[in-house]
Parts: sequence; structure tokens; C-alpha cells
Amino acid sequence: MLDELKHQVCEANLALQRAGLVVLTWGNVSGMDADSGLVVIKPSGVDYDTMRPEQMVVVDLDGRVGAGDLRPSSDTPTHLVLYRAFPGIRGVAHTHSTHATAWAQAKRSLPCYGTTHADNFRGAIPITADLDARALSGDYEAETGHAIVRAFADVAPLEVPGVLVAGHGPFTWGASAAHAVENSIVLEQVALTALLTEALAPGIGGISTQLRDKHFLRKHGAGAYYGQG
Amino acid sequence: MLDELKHQVCEANLALQRAGLVVLTWGNVSGMDADSGLVVIKPSGVDYDTMRPEQMVVVDLDGRVGAGDLRPSSDTPTHLVLYRAFPGIRGVAHTHSTHATAWAQAKRSLPCYGTTHADNFRGAIPITADLDARALSGDYEAETGHAIVRAFADVAPLEVPGVLVAGHGPFTWGASAAHAVENSIVLEQVALTALLTEALAPGIGGISTQLRDKHFLRKHGAGAYYGQG
Amino acid sequence: MLDELKHQVCEANLALQRAGLVVLTWGNVSGMDADSGLVVIKPSGVDYDTMRPEQMVVVDLDGRVGAGDLRPSSDTPTHLVLYRAFPGIRGVAHTHSTHATAWAQAKRSLPCYGTTHADNFRGAIPITADLDARALSGDYEAETGHAIVRAFADVAPLEVPGVLVAGHGPFTWGASAAHAVENSIVLEQVALTALLTEALAPGIGGISTQLRDKHFLRKHGAGAYYGQG
Amino acid sequence: MLDELKHQVCEANLALQRAGLVVLTWGNVSGMDADSGLVVIKPSGVDYDTMRPEQMVVVDLDGRVGAGDLRPSSDTPTHLVLYRAFPGIRGVAHTHSTHATAWAQAKRSLPCYGTTHADNFRGAIPITADLDARALSGDYEAETGHAIVRAFADVAPLEVPGVLVAGHGPFTWGASAAHAVENSIVLEQVALTALLTEALAPGIGGISTQLRDKHFLRKHGAGAYYGQG
Repeated sequence: MLDELKHQVCEANLALQRAGLVVLTWGNVSGMDADSGLVVIKPSGVDYDTMRPEQMVVVDLDGRVGAGDLRPSSDTPTHLVLYRAFPGIRGVAHTHSTHATAWAQAKRSLPCYGTTHADNFRGAIPITADLDARALSGDYEAETGHAIVRAFADVAPLEVPGVLVAGHGPFTWGASAAHAVENSIVLEQVALTALLTEALAPGIGGISTQLRDKHFLRKHGAGAYYGQG
Repeated sequence: MLDELKHQVCEANLALQRAGLVVLTWGNVSGMDADSGLVVIKPSGVDYDTMRPEQMVVVDLDGRVGAGDLRPSSDTPTHLVLYRAFPGIRGVAHTHSTHATAWAQAKRSLPCYGTTHADNFRGAIPITADLDARALSGDYEAETGHAIVRAFADVAPLEVPGVLVAGHGPFTWGASAAHAVENSIVLEQVALTALLTEALAPGIGGISTQLRDKHFLRKHGAGAYYGQG
Repeated sequence: MLDELKHQVCEANLALQRAGLVVLTWGNVSGMDADSGLVVIKPSGVDYDTMRPEQMVVVDLDGRVGAGDLRPSSDTPTHLVLYRAFPGIRGVAHTHSTHATAWAQAKRSLPCYGTTHADNFRGAIPITADLDARALSGDYEAETGHAIVRAFADVAPLEVPGVLVAGHGPFTWGASAAHAVENSIVLEQVALTALLTEALAPGIGGISTQLRDKHFLRKHGAGAYYGQG
Repeated sequence: MLDELKHQVCEANLALQRAGLVVLTWGNVSGMDADSGLVVIKPSGVDYDTMRPEQMVVVDLDGRVGAGDLRPSSDTPTHLVLYRAFPGIRGVAHTHSTHATAWAQAKRSLPCYGTTHADNFRGAIPITADLDARALSGDYEAETGHAIVRAFADVAPLEVPGVLVAGHGPFTWGASAAHAVENSIVLEQVALTALLTEALAPGIGGISTQLRDKHFLRKHGAGAYYGQG
């Protein structure tokens, strides 16, 4: 049951570490089985060095954990909110990667300063609002998810597959666990490059909407011509 | 005698190097045996590449070195002051890791700008006062320890398990040598991220006490729910 | 046919990755066979981990792809414009390397702040003008090439073998695919060092023309005395 | 003849690369045989990956190359000036390491901001004056050496074993080729940390002379107590 998805999710978590986005046991990736609506996610606080597919935890969209499974990542409720709110996503990744986290801590959305950004994200990457006292004292991790969803009121989550949670760090998503990880890698790289861009040219604006869309659309959608199709 | 602790302390020193926190022979980690009150510490100036458990040095809390042992780390008196002053700690680590050292050289305490910091440190990481001429010309390494203890007059050392020594670098501690090293790793990462946060948002304040405590307490204390418990 | 060049181009692409200039499948290197005027280039969106010489794509200078070949890099038309416009170049490399891309996104030319720069580039590395709406909606990748050529109206491309494309990233070239990659490595390093130089000494000017030429000419041209000749 | 020194110098050059201070074929290390006054140095432009002790070049203090040897590093005349001017040094290293080069390009001496610096360098690391037109058009590499020597008119080269050459990069030296490399490693690390220190605390002064000397003297001189003696 879900063995293939467990392999994919385990491999996606390990890919996060190989990409240098992980310190200690931080970070987590999940994947969703579209037919059953079940989600597979990394267990909480497990070492990457000994991580195995069998350790991956199965939860349903209401957060009920499979019998005999380990405790899932403490961020699981955030993942589940995203799967319920953003139709079409099949993977979610969360990291504390250095530069994306710096933007999150700075409570700034990440402007689109170049084509590297535009290749994967069609516009600025939103920052969430701070959680209020009620949300912090309530179901904190689910409330984090709701704050993310509110930040996408006017943004298409499949065109901008990532967010910065204020004072915390980034979440990304995609058509699979592997795609969510790819978007975490790109987000970290563009967060770094954007920071350097501002250091070199304070006040510079982002690239034009036309250049942004040219790059996004040559990789995504009906007219895409990047890759081997 | 203390063979198990020697293995743990040697391994903790090597973990410091594997984490990229070490240049040349810099850095040192110790562990304390609670029953005997003896401390095991890295010898002075020994290469990490050839380090072995048998080389670890045993000292008592007054600094007397075991017969036949190598010379202990020159920072040993600082470690001993911390073991005597902070009940409950069983490991101490010292590095010159890049970004924590930059904050120490800048003579600034490290604000809590995000949940990554709050996961391991419940508040700002203190900076020591400069040592005065008397302390510098006296028992320098022990005086460094006393300066650290003074910086914790109003801070709980088990809740903020690290410090920046002005003009020098960080010390961290924990429930074991391995935990002290883990805190050195986290301190270096939050020192880096905090520096970038300030570059992106000069004058930004830290996260709220409520968010800080939410994260610290989901990993530590009676209500913790991170990891496999 | 062109087997040797395919090996060289494949190896040059892998060298780009080994040098740390590549994230995911980004970046591409080509080489030109001077006799036939045929160009060999990396296929689009192929993993570096499984890249083989046989996958390299042959195109002519008008962009016609060899029978049975994979789809060439989407940036191929940019490479072809450069081969046609800059006589004597036999290799072209394109990356999104972090610091060169930051300068490109900052829309600034890269000043010559030191002898490291002057060893490979005889002067500032030009920035292209933004593409206008017509160019963006037309043959975008060829237009990128034309913008590069316009930036070299008063610069010798064999003496300054690289450029920053505004809002995008760097291209470099040289006497072979391997030399183009070497210039990408140097460009990334001098882009990093120049950024740090400005942070340490805002407003500092570049080195003198005399020092710059001393270094460029001790490695290039008739009087060169670097290397084993 | 000098086989042992050739091994040491080859190994020191490779240590420079292992320490991450080298890009491409940049950098060079030499060692002097005190009895004969002969100097062994890396050949010019040779790959680190295939470097062997037999390739190391022997030159006398006037720059005459041993029969049958490869061409020595183009920076050899700079090394020779230092051996002649600074009695007691037996090794010299030159790199374009990133952060030391940034200070050199910024034409700033490197202040002593912490004990990491003071452990190996007893005070600020000097910057040379720019070479004038005559020096640039004359025996350039020897003139670089003379500029270094002038920067040490009031500084003891054995207590501050390194320099920043304006617009170029660092040279370091020591009691052997290996010690010269160690000083290059420390210089790069303190150049990085000092840059970050200034970013965090603009205008901060260096550490006190007393703290600086405490650290330098606990590792060097008659009263040293660091290491295993």
C-alpha cells in the first residue's frame, strides 16, 4: 500500500539533504496519492542518514495517522491544509534553507529580479502575515497553513509554487514530491541571488512582466519548448 | 575508566569538524561524568585527522590532569567554570565558526529573528563584556568563563545554551557533548541567517515572545511533541 | 562524425557542473568545428548525472538540427549568433552562476578591480541593454545574441571573453569549449570578489590600465610568459 | 638533491588546493633550503590534479633556474625578494583566495578584530602601496616584492606573517612551506570574518593590544602553552 509513494517521498527528503538545504533533522517533504487522498510524509526528528521508505508515515487529509506508523513531522497539519486548498498539487516541501529563511525572517516577499526566478515562479513569492495570538495558541501548524492560503488570495499557486512564512521559512509545492523539492532548490538559489542583486543595485526593480512570462511559459504550459518534451 | 565518555567526546569533536565549523586544529568539545565529576576534553593542538578516543584528556573540576595524559585544550579552564556554574550541563563546545565569531567580534548579542533560533534557544544569545586588564593578565581562560557566567545573571543557561565571547567566539553547552555540538551547529546557522535578515530588513525586530516560546516548547519540556518522544 | 568534438563538449558541460556553477539542469556549453562550421551543444533539460557524448546535438550555424538528435538547448540560437559575429571563437558557455547572475540582475557591468580579473578579461565585462517588447515577442534567444553583439561595439570579444545579459546571466566564450568554461569559472570568481570589494570600499575605482594590461599580456599574446609555453 | 624539500613544497601546494584557496591553476608555494640558499617552487600554470614533487623547480636567490627544470611560477621573483629581505622565513605562499583578495582589491589593511586573527598575526595585516608606472613597466614581480618589504618598515614580518598586495591578493610566509600555507588559510578566514564583523558593527575598533598579545603569545614565543609543546 503506497509503497511506491513511500519510496518517492523518502527519496525526495534525501534529495533535499543532498541539495544542501538541510541542517540536522530539519525539513520535511510529503506526497499525496490522488486516488485515495492519502498523504505520505517524513516522520518527526528522524536522521537523514538512516532514513528508509518504510519509516514514511501515512496520514489522511484530516491528519489521522496510519496504524503502527511513527509520529509524522510536526509540520504535517500545514501540509494538509495546502493539499486541501490548492487543487492539483501532489507534493509539499518545507525547509529552513539559509537565504529563503532570511527573506522570511525579514518579512519580505521575494521580488522577481531575473529569468532564473521566472523559469519556475511566475512573479514575486508571497510573504505571509504574522500569526495573531489566537492562531499561535491554537492549532498552530494548521494556522500556518491558513496564513499561506490567505497569501494566495490573488496569486495562482500552480504558477507561484512557493511561499515565505513570516519569521519561519519557506514552503514549496508541485506536481510531485520531487517537483516540490526542485522548487525548494530554485527558491533558495533565487533568494540568494536576489539578496546579492539588492546589495549591488539598491532600489532596482524586477524584470518586466513580458520577460518574466517569456521564461515561465517557455518551460510551462502549452507552448513550452524547454527539455525533451 | 571513562572509556565510553572518551569515545563520546572524541566523536563529538569529530562531529564539529564534519559540520564544517572547524579550521585547522581550532575548536574543542568536552563532556562531564556526572558521578565522578571528571571532565574529558580534547587535547591541545591535535590534528582532527588522527584524533583517537585514547588521546582525550581527563581533568577534574579543579583542572588537575590525569597521569600520563596529553596537555588538555588551552581553553579547559573556561569549560570547567561552566560545569561548576551551570548545574545540569554535561557537555561544552567551543568553536571559531565564521558567523557566530563575526557577531562575537561585533560585540553584539544575537537577536531571535525566527523559529529556527527559537527551536533551540529561548531568546537572544548573550554577548559577554570585554575582559578588563586584570582579567587578561591573570587566569585568562578561567576569567573568560567568569565573564560568560556574568552574562547569564538573568538568563537560564539550559534555555539559552550558548554565548558569544566578545572579540573571540562562541561557546555552547547541553545535556551531553553531542548536544553541545548540535547547539554549535544551530548557533552558526542562526548567526548566518540573522546577519542576512538584517541586511534585508535593517531595524527589523525579533519574533514575538509567543511565537518564540511556541517553538522552543514544542521541542523542549513537558509539552514537547517534536521527534519520536 | 564530430565524435571528438562531442566528447569535448560533453566534458566541458560536466566541468561546468564540477566547478559548482550549475543548479539542476541549468547551463549549457557548445563547441564549433571550424572546418564544417557545425556546432555541437548540450541537449535541452538533460540531467548532468547521466550525460553522455552521444547525446550532444549537432546544429549548423542556421540552427538546423542533425537527423535523430535530441532537442538542443533552448539557448542554442544565442550561441549561434555569437559564433557568427565573433570570428575566432570556438566555444560558448552559459550559466546562471550565483554572483555573475547577481551582477546581470543588477544590470551593471563588472569593473576590473584586480589582477585576477585582468588575467583573463582585459577590462570591464559589459552588460547588455534590456530587450525591447519586439525582441521579447520575436526570436527571443537570437535577439539575446544580438544584444550581446551590440554590447561589444567598442570591445574586442577575444580580449573580454564574456558578457552579462541584463536580468538573466552570463555568457562566456573562448578558443574551445574548455576555454569558454574556464572563463565562466573566472567570471564567477571575479563577480564574487568584486561584490565584496565594493562592500569593503564603496566607490573605489578599478585598477590602472597599466596594471590591467601587464597581467592580461603576461598570460596572452606574443609576450606572454605564464605557463609552460 | 633537495628531494625532501620538493616533497614538502609539492605537498604544501596541494594543501593550498585542499583548503579551497585555489581556483584553476592559481596560487603558488615555495620553500627555501637554509644551507644552500636554494628555493624550490611550483612550476608555472601546472594542473594541481597531476602535480608531482619531481616537477618542482629549483632556483637560486638570484632567480637562476636549475638545468632541465620547468619554468617556475611567474611570481617567483616576488618570493625571492621576500626570502632575501625577511631573515628566518623558509616558506612563502601566494593565493587569490576570495576574501583576502577582496581586502587587497579594496586597498585596505586588515584590522585585528578578534582572537582568531591574533592567534597567528600580531596586529593588522598591511596593504602595499600601488606600484608606480616605472615599477609596472620594469621588473614587475620583483617590484611587487619590494612594495611588500616597504610595507613592513615598522612591522615585524615574523610576527605578522602576511600581506595584502593592493589590487592583487595576499602573500603569506612562515618557518616552512607548510606554515606559509597555514597562514594563508588563517588569513582567508580572518579576512572573511572581518568583513562580516564590519557589516554587523560599522566603525567598531579592533580588540585591545593586551588581548591581541595574550593570544599571540600563548601560541608563539617563550611562554607559549598551546599545543603539545
